[in-house]
Amino acid sequence: MAGEPQADCLFCKIVAGEVPATVVRETETTFAFRDINPQAPTHVLVIPRAHYPDAVALAVAEPAVAADVLTVAGQIAEEEKVAGTGYRIVFNTGAGAGQTVFHAHAHVLAGRGLAWPPG
Amino acid sequence: MAGEPQADCLFCKIVAGEVPATVVRETETTFAFRDINPQAPTHVLVIPRAHYPDAVALAVAEPAVAADVLTVAGQIAEEEKVAGTGYRIVFNTGAGAGQTVFHAHAHVLAGRGLAWPPG
Repeated sequence: MAGEPQADCLFCKIVAGEVPATVVRETETTFAFRDINPQAPTHVLVIPRAHYPDAVALAVAEPAVAADVLTVAGQIAEEEKVAGTGYRIVFNTGAGAGQTVFHAHAHVLAGRGLAWPPG
Repeated sequence: MAGEPQADCLFCKIVAGEVPATVVRETETTFAFRDINPQAPTHVLVIPRAHYPDAVALAVAEPAVAADVLTVAGQIAEEEKVAGTGYRIVFNTGAGAGQTVFHAHAHVLAGRGLAWPPG
């Protein structure tokens, strides 16, 4: 069934507490934790608890949860005191864009200058 | 009122047809056009027709439209034949993250290798 946990998904295991992570925020629909390989002073991943392979699949299936991911990204920026200076939200879709875990996730990056182009 | 067009907003003017743009896709809630300073073979901006200063403000006020922006990004990736190889969706919030137009917009980039970190 769409959205169900996948046995071989690292992020489903993190949501289930089977794999440890530095949790930043939990809501009914989302889960946020620090990237294990941070690329900026603030580098948090915000994911839906439900399993969808990428952000667009999530938005199509559960639009309210996709919006929750963005809303939580903003809450984290406030908490980390980076909302004023700015932050970047990045969704990679597909291996060619750098996606390595195929469970939808937003990268929230801040706390340093963020160059353009974004990769 | 939240979401109303702003007289001094470039993207509101593009939505209204007052400023030209290379339009890629229009839906009831969104508008997509090519970035005037493209950073990749595919570089499209997807915006809500309604005016919100950034993606999080949009997600809080109109969650369904925030999801529409992501859904349309995926449709564009399909149309541009980049969904298979991968694409990156980027939201900059704040001048420090590179936001230059304060009307929520998703950058959709694809068609070349996308490095990490994303800026």
